[in-house]
Amino acid sequence: MRYLTAGESHGPQLTTIIEGLPAGMPIIDEDINFQLERRQKGHGRGRRMQIEKDQVQIVSGVRHGYTLGSPVALIVENNDWKHWTKIMGHEPLEEMENEEVKRVITRPRPGHADLNGALKYGHRDMRNVLERSSARETTVRVAAGAVAKKLLSLLGIEVASHVIEIGGVKADSTTYQSIEQLREVTENSSVRCFDPEVEEKMKEAIDTAKANGDSIGGVVEVIVEGMPSGVGSYVHYDRKLDAKIAGAIVSINAFKGVEFGIGFEAARKPGSQVHDEIAWSNEEGYYRKTNRLGGFEGGMTTGMPIVVRGVMKPIPTLYKPLKSVDIETKEPFTASIERSDSCAVPAAAVVAENVVAWEIASAIMDQFYSDRFEGLKESIQAQRDYARDF
Amino acid sequence: MRYLTAGESHGPQLTTIIEGLPAGMPIIDEDINFQLERRQKGHGRGRRMQIEKDQVQIVSGVRHGYTLGSPVALIVENNDWKHWTKIMGHEPLEEMENEEVKRVITRPRPGHADLNGALKYGHRDMRNVLERSSARETTVRVAAGAVAKKLLSLLGIEVASHVIEIGGVKADSTTYQSIEQLREVTENSSVRCFDPEVEEKMKEAIDTAKANGDSIGGVVEVIVEGMPSGVGSYVHYDRKLDAKIAGAIVSINAFKGVEFGIGFEAARKPGSQVHDEIAWSNEEGYYRKTNRLGGFEGGMTTGMPIVVRGVMKPIPTLYKPLKSVDIETKEPFTASIERSDSCAVPAAAVVAENVVAWEIASAIMDQFYSDRFEGLKESIQAQRDYARDF
Amino acid sequence: MRYLTAGESHGPQLTTIIEGLPAGMPIIDEDINFQLERRQKGHGRGRRMQIEKDQVQIVSGVRHGYTLGSPVALIVENNDWKHWTKIMGHEPLEEMENEEVKRVITRPRPGHADLNGALKYGHRDMRNVLERSSARETTVRVAAGAVAKKLLSLLGIEVASHVIEIGGVKADSTTYQSIEQLREVTENSSVRCFDPEVEEKMKEAIDTAKANGDSIGGVVEVIVEGMPSGVGSYVHYDRKLDAKIAGAIVSINAFKGVEFGIGFEAARKPGSQVHDEIAWSNEEGYYRKTNRLGGFEGGMTTGMPIVVRGVMKPIPTLYKPLKSVDIETKEPFTASIERSDSCAVPAAAVVAENVVAWEIASAIMDQFYSDRFEGLKESIQAQRDYARDF
Amino acid sequence: MRYLTAGESHGPQLTTIIEGLPAGMPIIDEDINFQLERRQKGHGRGRRMQIEKDQVQIVSGVRHGYTLGSPVALIVENNDWKHWTKIMGHEPLEEMENEEVKRVITRPRPGHADLNGALKYGHRDMRNVLERSSARETTVRVAAGAVAKKLLSLLGIEVASHVIEIGGVKADSTTYQSIEQLREVTENSSVRCFDPEVEEKMKEAIDTAKANGDSIGGVVEVIVEGMPSGVGSYVHYDRKLDAKIAGAIVSINAFKGVEFGIGFEAARKPGSQVHDEIAWSNEEGYYRKTNRLGGFEGGMTTGMPIVVRGVMKPIPTLYKPLKSVDIETKEPFTASIERSDSCAVPAAAVVAENVVAWEIASAIMDQFYSDRFEGLKESIQAQRDYARDF
Repeated sequence: MRYLTAGESHGPQLTTIIEGLPAGMPIIDEDINFQLERRQKGHGRGRRMQIEKDQVQIVSGVRHGYTLGSPVALIVENNDWKHWTKIMGHEPLEEMENEEVKRVITRPRPGHADLNGALKYGHRDMRNVLERSSARETTVRVAAGAVAKKLLSLLGIEVASHVIEIGGVKADSTTYQSIEQLREVTENSSVRCFDPEVEEKMKEAIDTAKANGDSIGGVVEVIVEGMPSGVGSYVHYDRKLDAKIAGAIVSINAFKGVEFGIGFEAARKPGSQVHDEIAWSNEEGYYRKTNRLGGFEGGMTTGMPIVVRGVMKPIPTLYKPLKSVDIETKEPFTASIERSDSCAVPAAAVVAENVVAWEIASAIMDQFYSDRFEGLKESIQAQRDYARDF
Repeated sequence: MRYLTAGESHGPQLTTIIEGLPAGMPIIDEDINFQLERRQKGHGRGRRMQIEKDQVQIVSGVRHGYTLGSPVALIVENNDWKHWTKIMGHEPLEEMENEEVKRVITRPRPGHADLNGALKYGHRDMRNVLERSSARETTVRVAAGAVAKKLLSLLGIEVASHVIEIGGVKADSTTYQSIEQLREVTENSSVRCFDPEVEEKMKEAIDTAKANGDSIGGVVEVIVEGMPSGVGSYVHYDRKLDAKIAGAIVSINAFKGVEFGIGFEAARKPGSQVHDEIAWSNEEGYYRKTNRLGGFEGGMTTGMPIVVRGVMKPIPTLYKPLKSVDIETKEPFTASIERSDSCAVPAAAVVAENVVAWEIASAIMDQFYSDRFEGLKESIQAQRDYARDF
Repeated sequence: MRYLTAGESHGPQLTTIIEGLPAGMPIIDEDINFQLERRQKGHGRGRRMQIEKDQVQIVSGVRHGYTLGSPVALIVENNDWKHWTKIMGHEPLEEMENEEVKRVITRPRPGHADLNGALKYGHRDMRNVLERSSARETTVRVAAGAVAKKLLSLLGIEVASHVIEIGGVKADSTTYQSIEQLREVTENSSVRCFDPEVEEKMKEAIDTAKANGDSIGGVVEVIVEGMPSGVGSYVHYDRKLDAKIAGAIVSINAFKGVEFGIGFEAARKPGSQVHDEIAWSNEEGYYRKTNRLGGFEGGMTTGMPIVVRGVMKPIPTLYKPLKSVDIETKEPFTASIERSDSCAVPAAAVVAENVVAWEIASAIMDQFYSDRFEGLKESIQAQRDYARDF
Repeated sequence: MRYLTAGESHGPQLTTIIEGLPAGMPIIDEDINFQLERRQKGHGRGRRMQIEKDQVQIVSGVRHGYTLGSPVALIVENNDWKHWTKIMGHEPLEEMENEEVKRVITRPRPGHADLNGALKYGHRDMRNVLERSSARETTVRVAAGAVAKKLLSLLGIEVASHVIEIGGVKADSTTYQSIEQLREVTENSSVRCFDPEVEEKMKEAIDTAKANGDSIGGVVEVIVEGMPSGVGSYVHYDRKLDAKIAGAIVSINAFKGVEFGIGFEAARKPGSQVHDEIAWSNEEGYYRKTNRLGGFEGGMTTGMPIVVRGVMKPIPTLYKPLKSVDIETKEPFTASIERSDSCAVPAAAVVAENVVAWEIASAIMDQFYSDRFEGLKESIQAQRDYARDF
């Protein structure tokens, strides 16, 4: 499976094409829209999130509720496009329009792609960078991930997430009883936190940051349950599934790190407290008594839940400005704000869920039979049976 | 650029083929052997590291000291192969040989790929898994990385590393003055630590772990200086260079996490203390006053040093054993040891350096002219000039 | 560079996303629409070609007439979609709708993907196959190719084509004086043939086939002038540019073969009459006195024109029907027709041009500097200069 | 599945690494050596073929006769290496050695990669090109293909080939009764021709060419029987299996064209004589009454034999010399010969078989379950059953 995305933040639409899905998999708008809606929520989001209610259009690859096996194209229109047709239009400008329309951006914002992108692609108007580097693009990454998530769910694999740290306020990541409970609670939390007390403190931290004209980041955790063992592979470094997931997490806008299981704590504990003992029972076959390694050994799933965390830096667009330099005048200035989110961590948890789902679904499609969805189910069941009886 | 590796831990040799190097780049054995030697050092390594002095053989793609543009094949022979020809031979076994030779491994070690690999590939002799999942494979990843590192060095880009944490003993990661000084000191440290006091404590921690029959992990930091800005890209999620590096770090055996710049600390600090202000001077062009983001914005290099850290879990093979289950009898047992390293973090720092070097070199080859090495140099210089004058 | 396409023949739209273009390249609708229009012309096309006037919408990656470096998404809407919303809609059907709407196709047409696709993907309604396997998809392959063609043209590389055989009526492929003349004449020929006398015979052949309820195929030739030498590479089999072009040509619907230069004639001639002698002049540097090898040696361009031919089989949908079997009843039937083109070779020449352009542009982007279009031009010019002075 | 090859013609060895094979597949030296030996035979080969008896060494990925799932590395040593250690050594030359050792090649041979490769990679000694561009590399492509062929054979899929044209002498390509018969006869023919009378004429043509100091090419045909239907896909242009095979054939040194089934004849026949009618029987399920399309519709296998032909140009190295230009003096000269094969078509048939086998095996591994070989067999059988009962 592979997918490409396209689209600028204020362009007419975002688009993704997903190639390689099995045929005969049920999928409806709601499967995707639900994820898009989740991505738009969260305490600390600014005005823009309210005006855009993202809705997907499935324009290829699905007929009468089932995938065809052909590429699936998804579109999310920009509801505000009518205000941007001149500024973001693809047609060449008339001589006269040029000046009034362009409102050239010459002031790179620290923490954004603005300056590096300008130097790389030769854009003296940095709108040409920021329109694509914006986290708006994650909308269609979520849409693609939503399709992957649906596929996984139909195979008995569930993906969920929670926010476990915002602006230094930490939750215990292990208090939930089941993935269902985790989902239920976090869907009703405006910061996607499982612990109601911590939730309140996180909201306060966000409000304080906002009041200070500042922004804060946090840590999200994604959980995947129901994985068969042996997805991914140790035989070649670039087939390790945890490595692919690590790459996917860091590829989310503003993410600066990722860890699995006990993660960086593994540097502080002796081996006898890090590894997971192996057990066996007649019903289940092999299992682990603990899950410190977060569901991975040797780049492959162990069958235990995948537990992966990513850290998101604070949104760089601040009321409290940082110094930068105008690329035309070379004069210093203090960076102005473009929008007003003070914390995007809850939304980022949803993005993280969906990019993780994509990598897992993709790895499954690689190693199992993949043409017809029913056959895929049988192929995975055969492997589950094989592993249980091994 | 791409490379494949092959080879089992006790097979006749490890092999890598590197495809896509420019022609006319100088390279000699010593460039690679030096890295192989660095990988074999370190306080806490067991007996095996002593007996093997890894030496590369360049068997294709290089003539009279220069790359040809054709694929470079590198071989590292197993000096101990003569003792393994029967056990690891590729020929079918005679009926009678079967039993005496095979010494079938039916006891999966917790924390290793043994069990998952067996379930996946159907190996009832788990030697068939562990021979490939072993960190021995990193030898040729280092060899491939050494070639990348040479390429970078010739382009004015230097890669170094240091160990900043072992078994809970932490060093300050920021005390070195220059990458040259960092290299000089760490090459003479048996734990690759820059701070001599911390070094002593790290060695003690290793010795204590060993005495306890336990093992410890740690954190390594890789530094890359001299990068042009704009390597990598924000335009598509899978072209972000930090994401590729994250995947590469986690693909190293036993690595469970990765972070850039201030990394997970970004969850605890306000945005105004996370992002790097932009400045400009006539000589240098644009630069940053700080480097909290570790050399990346928008998945692209900023021109500041790349700073990336990875966490390695303790080696899972312990004297102090963990419980597991024999796959034939289904009886529990306590996992025996196969070898005796109690800490492999210093070696892992070298591996990390080299996998990071590979990803960077590969990204550079993608976006610049890449057929002749001299032309590559000019192409990068042209971009450096362009950025300085922008 | 890479691109994905999506879209069913009677779905709402065709979509392509092109990733990897340089920034700062001029491109307008007309560059693409001109190619789409060329694809829709040709003696022997049926009714459908008249009703659809394909028009591209550039919905991302281009602003004010220049590429941004970000992915370019192109859409071609189906003007007839309003008549297909129920039959091809992506929503699940209501129970009752099911029967009236579906008009299930159970009769596979010989020569189409219908049966194989049904067996592979489990479609008992073969509309689920034919909607994607239709040559309608080539519309967006042409759109993507048109962008590549524009890029090449700006680099001084021109791509053209002509039809040299239809239904056994052959033209001499070598009579044109220049690529400009070839273009001028063939654009005014309804069968894209350079020779007016042969053109008349081709039209007669098409008319005769149509009168007989039959269809005919033919041979198209694509010419590329202005190539620098050394694009593609001999160093690895999968980097040979002629091999990539061969794959691209055969991937066009209904193409059954491909050849370069004198092609299959090379099996009949002695080596002394097959290879091209090498000459040198002060102004031009190295050149060939002949071009029997069609612009390639060792999988690389020689700098001589690329000459590649592809053979298209007759359109399989015939008035004169072939026997097949209903997949529900297993009863034989004679295949009915779905549409009425009797010859699509002229259109296929346009498709061939554009897929060849894509492969060449992609190879150029691989080996030269590729971020900014101006830098790409300089990078290629540097290589042209190097080669001339070598 | 993927593979890389490395090695220069007179370097110490050729190497290939094959990544992605299933575990548990039986393979022995003989499976590969048999193909290597076939490649070295043939009327018209020069001296070198006699001195080298290529023998594979399996140095990774296989243990006790079965694949491990880990990468398979294969080596073919150059028996003549001892005479080339100085000329082709990878170490830098001492000042003095330089002149006597190097024997710089400054005279590009028409029809070879020499000149283009020199211009591209900046080699003023064209030995740096010809050592890699030589067809010697096909040795390890055959080795990789032999592994693929073994895999296919164990799945009931057989690949064979015959020479149907040499230097204008043509055989009827359809006279064999079965693939077994085809193999039996052609293995005993020094030109791999099925028809003994034509064989004699082909040998005469070769001898005549040789006597004239000339060389001749020809056409080879590869046959694949036992394919399941639906391998490859119409859903995306780059997943069409015939297109991949076309690319693989043209990537063989000296191949200038490829066609499937009736191939270029499809340009001369009406549709009613080109397509294959579909039939059904209780035992077999669906089948075709003819096989004019060579086993492919819509880029997928039909279940009928794959029939693909490739044309090889005459070997460019001639006694009867062609004009060229010395790159140092810019003086014209007549190209000298390096070796003395006058016809390599029979060997090329073996190469073609093996590259076709690779593409097919690779496509099968993509779409079916692929970890354990037994599971792969079951996965394919399940699809065969599904198709038969459809």
